[in-house]
Amino acid sequence: MCDSNQCAHSHEHYHHHTIDPAAAEMLEKANREHIETAWDRYEQQKPQCGFGDLGLCCRNCLQGPCRVNPFGEPKEGICGADADLIVARNLLRTIVGGAASHSDHSYMAIHCLKLAAEGKAPYQLKGADKIKSVAAKLGINAKGKSDNDLALEIALAALADFGSYDDEPMKWLKASVSAERLEAWNKLGVLPKNPDREIRTAMHQTSMGVDGSPVNLLLSCLKLGLVDGYAGLQMGTDVQDILFGIPYPVKTEANLGVLSHDKVNIVVHGHMPEVSEKIVEWARKLDGEAVAAGAAGINIAGICCSGNEVLMRQGVPLAGNYLSQELAIITGAVELMVVDVQCFMPSITKVAACYHTKVVTTTPIGQLPDAEYIPFTHEEADKKAQETVRMAIAAYAKRDPAKVQIPSHKSEAWGGFSVETIVGALSKVDAEKPLKPLVDNIAAGNILGAVGVVGCNNVKLTQDKVTVEMVEELLANNVLVVATGCTAHALAKYGFLSPAGAKKYAGEKLLAVLTAVGEAAGLGGPLPPVLHMGSCVDNSRIGDLLNALAAYLGVAVKDLPVAASAPELQHEKAVSIGTWAVAMGVFTHISIAPFVLGSPLVSKVLTDDLEGLTGGKFYVEADGRKAAEGIMAHIRNKRKALGI
Amino acid sequence: MCDSNQCAHSHEHYHHHTIDPAAAEMLEKANREHIETAWDRYEQQKPQCGFGDLGLCCRNCLQGPCRVNPFGEPKEGICGADADLIVARNLLRTIVGGAASHSDHSYMAIHCLKLAAEGKAPYQLKGADKIKSVAAKLGINAKGKSDNDLALEIALAALADFGSYDDEPMKWLKASVSAERLEAWNKLGVLPKNPDREIRTAMHQTSMGVDGSPVNLLLSCLKLGLVDGYAGLQMGTDVQDILFGIPYPVKTEANLGVLSHDKVNIVVHGHMPEVSEKIVEWARKLDGEAVAAGAAGINIAGICCSGNEVLMRQGVPLAGNYLSQELAIITGAVELMVVDVQCFMPSITKVAACYHTKVVTTTPIGQLPDAEYIPFTHEEADKKAQETVRMAIAAYAKRDPAKVQIPSHKSEAWGGFSVETIVGALSKVDAEKPLKPLVDNIAAGNILGAVGVVGCNNVKLTQDKVTVEMVEELLANNVLVVATGCTAHALAKYGFLSPAGAKKYAGEKLLAVLTAVGEAAGLGGPLPPVLHMGSCVDNSRIGDLLNALAAYLGVAVKDLPVAASAPELQHEKAVSIGTWAVAMGVFTHISIAPFVLGSPLVSKVLTDDLEGLTGGKFYVEADGRKAAEGIMAHIRNKRKALGI
Repeated sequence: MCDSNQCAHSHEHYHHHTIDPAAAEMLEKANREHIETAWDRYEQQKPQCGFGDLGLCCRNCLQGPCRVNPFGEPKEGICGADADLIVARNLLRTIVGGAASHSDHSYMAIHCLKLAAEGKAPYQLKGADKIKSVAAKLGINAKGKSDNDLALEIALAALADFGSYDDEPMKWLKASVSAERLEAWNKLGVLPKNPDREIRTAMHQTSMGVDGSPVNLLLSCLKLGLVDGYAGLQMGTDVQDILFGIPYPVKTEANLGVLSHDKVNIVVHGHMPEVSEKIVEWARKLDGEAVAAGAAGINIAGICCSGNEVLMRQGVPLAGNYLSQELAIITGAVELMVVDVQCFMPSITKVAACYHTKVVTTTPIGQLPDAEYIPFTHEEADKKAQETVRMAIAAYAKRDPAKVQIPSHKSEAWGGFSVETIVGALSKVDAEKPLKPLVDNIAAGNILGAVGVVGCNNVKLTQDKVTVEMVEELLANNVLVVATGCTAHALAKYGFLSPAGAKKYAGEKLLAVLTAVGEAAGLGGPLPPVLHMGSCVDNSRIGDLLNALAAYLGVAVKDLPVAASAPELQHEKAVSIGTWAVAMGVFTHISIAPFVLGSPLVSKVLTDDLEGLTGGKFYVEADGRKAAEGIMAHIRNKRKALGI
Repeated sequence: MCDSNQCAHSHEHYHHHTIDPAAAEMLEKANREHIETAWDRYEQQKPQCGFGDLGLCCRNCLQGPCRVNPFGEPKEGICGADADLIVARNLLRTIVGGAASHSDHSYMAIHCLKLAAEGKAPYQLKGADKIKSVAAKLGINAKGKSDNDLALEIALAALADFGSYDDEPMKWLKASVSAERLEAWNKLGVLPKNPDREIRTAMHQTSMGVDGSPVNLLLSCLKLGLVDGYAGLQMGTDVQDILFGIPYPVKTEANLGVLSHDKVNIVVHGHMPEVSEKIVEWARKLDGEAVAAGAAGINIAGICCSGNEVLMRQGVPLAGNYLSQELAIITGAVELMVVDVQCFMPSITKVAACYHTKVVTTTPIGQLPDAEYIPFTHEEADKKAQETVRMAIAAYAKRDPAKVQIPSHKSEAWGGFSVETIVGALSKVDAEKPLKPLVDNIAAGNILGAVGVVGCNNVKLTQDKVTVEMVEELLANNVLVVATGCTAHALAKYGFLSPAGAKKYAGEKLLAVLTAVGEAAGLGGPLPPVLHMGSCVDNSRIGDLLNALAAYLGVAVKDLPVAASAPELQHEKAVSIGTWAVAMGVFTHISIAPFVLGSPLVSKVLTDDLEGLTGGKFYVEADGRKAAEGIMAHIRNKRKALGI
């Protein structure tokens, strides 16, 4: 690679890889420089294993690997597990992977909150309002208590859920959802207790010779989806808002053009704001040192959810989404990429080795053999952030101008549409019943419905294509769209997160609503047609908004004219988030099926029978415009049922 | 199957499947009756997937499945993960599967202990001595406290480990091991905190885009091995001994010949003595009802570790080990098989459907679509056990004599060699220093060394063959053998667990020692040459014995002339137990490699480098006699290093 003789993939292919012109430009550069990217590795992987793709392969004991033939014999593995059982076990382990990732993320945030409240870690509690609202929902008496004391009680309440050994459901979940859902989940037997206990039990349940019932395993999938939703997403957002502040609207830019020709470029990548916030803080404080080193200052840009976290609270621009992580380095202009956990490719150190780029890992469980490891403990966050920023400044001198090519593409993007922001904007229209204008416009048909568009990139799909085509279609048909994660990045790159995008993409009726609310909220123009609600853990914000809408209307979430979509599904986390969404009763579009198609039973339960149990189900469609049609058909059915 | 037209596998093959004549007889019957067994399904699985077998396949995100070609391209998955990384991630998830299974098992036992101590579940605390010894090791002040109060404190101490959120290592682990090990593990950074937290974090660590360091992942493998060893095995044994009593020597029989022609046969299968003990209790109490129904009474027999649990405490005979579970039903004489968790094949309901046999599942996570589900809560254990036993009695009338064929084979077998038993027997020789006779005999060369032989059956290996050939060789060379799990069953079937076996198998010097100790202990003859130390969780007993020996000698476990062996490795649990053994510093033979051979790095670390870190390592050899040679070479090296 780079200095080797290895030949990169031939030229004509990469235009099919992405609709992002900046990404295409970097793929051309990669080709020229013989640098391998995920797309090249995908080509080398073809054809991918059909057994694995269908979920029909089992390695859960050393008698295997076993494979079931979807077209004949063998129909069973050595222990007697058939296709349905193998697929259901594998799916549950996938969802455990996602739920564990999110729970571990939120656990780290809780740990940070506890230390901060105890005065043992250098983090301020910037979300005073969130302290009050979270304490209230948990039933913590706030009277006469300082923010710090309350925050500590909240942290301990979160840890109590992780430490409980009674048979009661998670308290954080109970405090966050409606009585209707609690009853539905209780009836199904899927209310999670201590989230760690559920993870342990699910791993046990899927080991050789334990559960032989696919249906029982699928119910556990729902349970672990709820673990993700409440011990992962909900706790994560609640705690991070307390630590770093509730997001409010902020303007920035997105795409590789945000990288600077004359500043020290630091890319934050991963998921934990404890790291990325400190990098931003110290980059600002040490800007003078960068100037002293000959740069025009320090420029931070984000990738994946670390990008979302500092976008929505600090206005930090976005360099790109998941599939752009190698491409950012290929600009030759990145001094340092700092990662924490999740979604960073092991390949980035190899790409970085072709340039002057330093890669810094920060957590004990997320290391790379050829990176610098700077252990970012919460207690020492300031010291470690300074060390990291200074490493970037030092690297600037080694930037090779001959290797630098920064695409010019970037778009205006607004972030920070927390529930608090949305309700705040609406309250400028109706201070007493802030949700009324939204609901009235839905009822009147000015807004057909609402869709949360979330998730990843997946190299199997042209980058951003399904997302953009689907959202174009939805907006043109007056469907309000909110977005998180790498999907929000995708939409940011094409102007969907800007007020100008409202005029470009929104149907006439929707545009009128966006304009009325935007102007009432003092934005001097329409709201963006897609509201950026945050990182992947912030899907909890979408859940909160749905709960609020349902409560206002006196119906269940499953009855609302809404849907979710993960148009470029990829990570285990996305599968567990999707499972949470269907457990909530939400119709959930995905473009790529998880590894379940080898089981007719599992496929049917997920895409059909589930609706009778939770009100939600999965809908699989890989074409963006067709997906929009399918989603809108669902929304129209729900409108009809509501009599609107 | 059975009444279908499906043709069973041809006749000439099944003699290669097992060395057990009873099993071979039942395979003949299965063939005659067109009943499919695990061996038939193994044939149908061939050739097994080479990628999966080498650990080179990754399905951790939906960009996959990815495969690395061991002989060329591609060398990396789509994210850039290479063979070493993919193998290390997969191995860690395998070990998590094992550690979670054992921790969940012990958690259920702890829950039972807590309820029993609170008077809420109908279990007596039969292990008064164990209450005292466990309280003492945990540093619980026993003064003036009743057994019940102490037992409750012990249960709460165990739960406290599962509920802790500080960064301290598991207290149960610290109370169970030597300072030398604590220091070694601390230095490696592998001391586990809250076991559930470690499981959650390891699942996170192995998800897409988190850990890219194979070495870091291998260290986590060690950590999760310790989770298995102390939150699984050690807690499991300690708590089960408190509930059901410390095992003491008991005589019984083993192999399918223990099934009765004229009694109601109930087979207990699985792992949790909370279930199997209650079945035994109520079978004895309801014997009269069986007589009233025309049977000669009720006969209980065990399979897998449920069998071990009631063998060592109740003298219940063994029907067979893992690969004999279908064969027990094929005798046509089993009225009911009751399972709880782990190692029961999903196929058993299909085999049972060919006869009058009822299959009863008992736990929420271990169900089978065609079984009767009788939820065995601890509170209602008596009621549920009666229901189960009565279901068996009712089934007796439906037994079809024309389908009954019970092999005549069975062997005398002794169980119950807990550490307390062994030390007790030795103290008859030297009351003051009970370990002295053992150590003196080792030093004098009368005992060359000791080997713990543990684990499963695996259909890839002729049933029992490696185990028997290896143990024959070890005993002939005066190596003392202790055994647990399905391996203990294997040895039971061939007389290794009987005093007569001492004369048949033990070398002259070993026989003299066994005879001297056996006679001093009042057994009127030699001890069995293989001491049955219990179920798979009871590998903790072997750990305790090694710790005691090392402490007596003032050396580390890693310096003892001992080894472990899993000669028919199969379950994820066996991989995690093996990892615990190497973490303890024990040379550990396995016959079949886990799915790691695709990574030269991982293979080398496990079989070589690890020795420099922990003192233990894996040794892979599929031939039983060669394995014995390899183990004895290791023992001789250790003797040499000790100067004996």
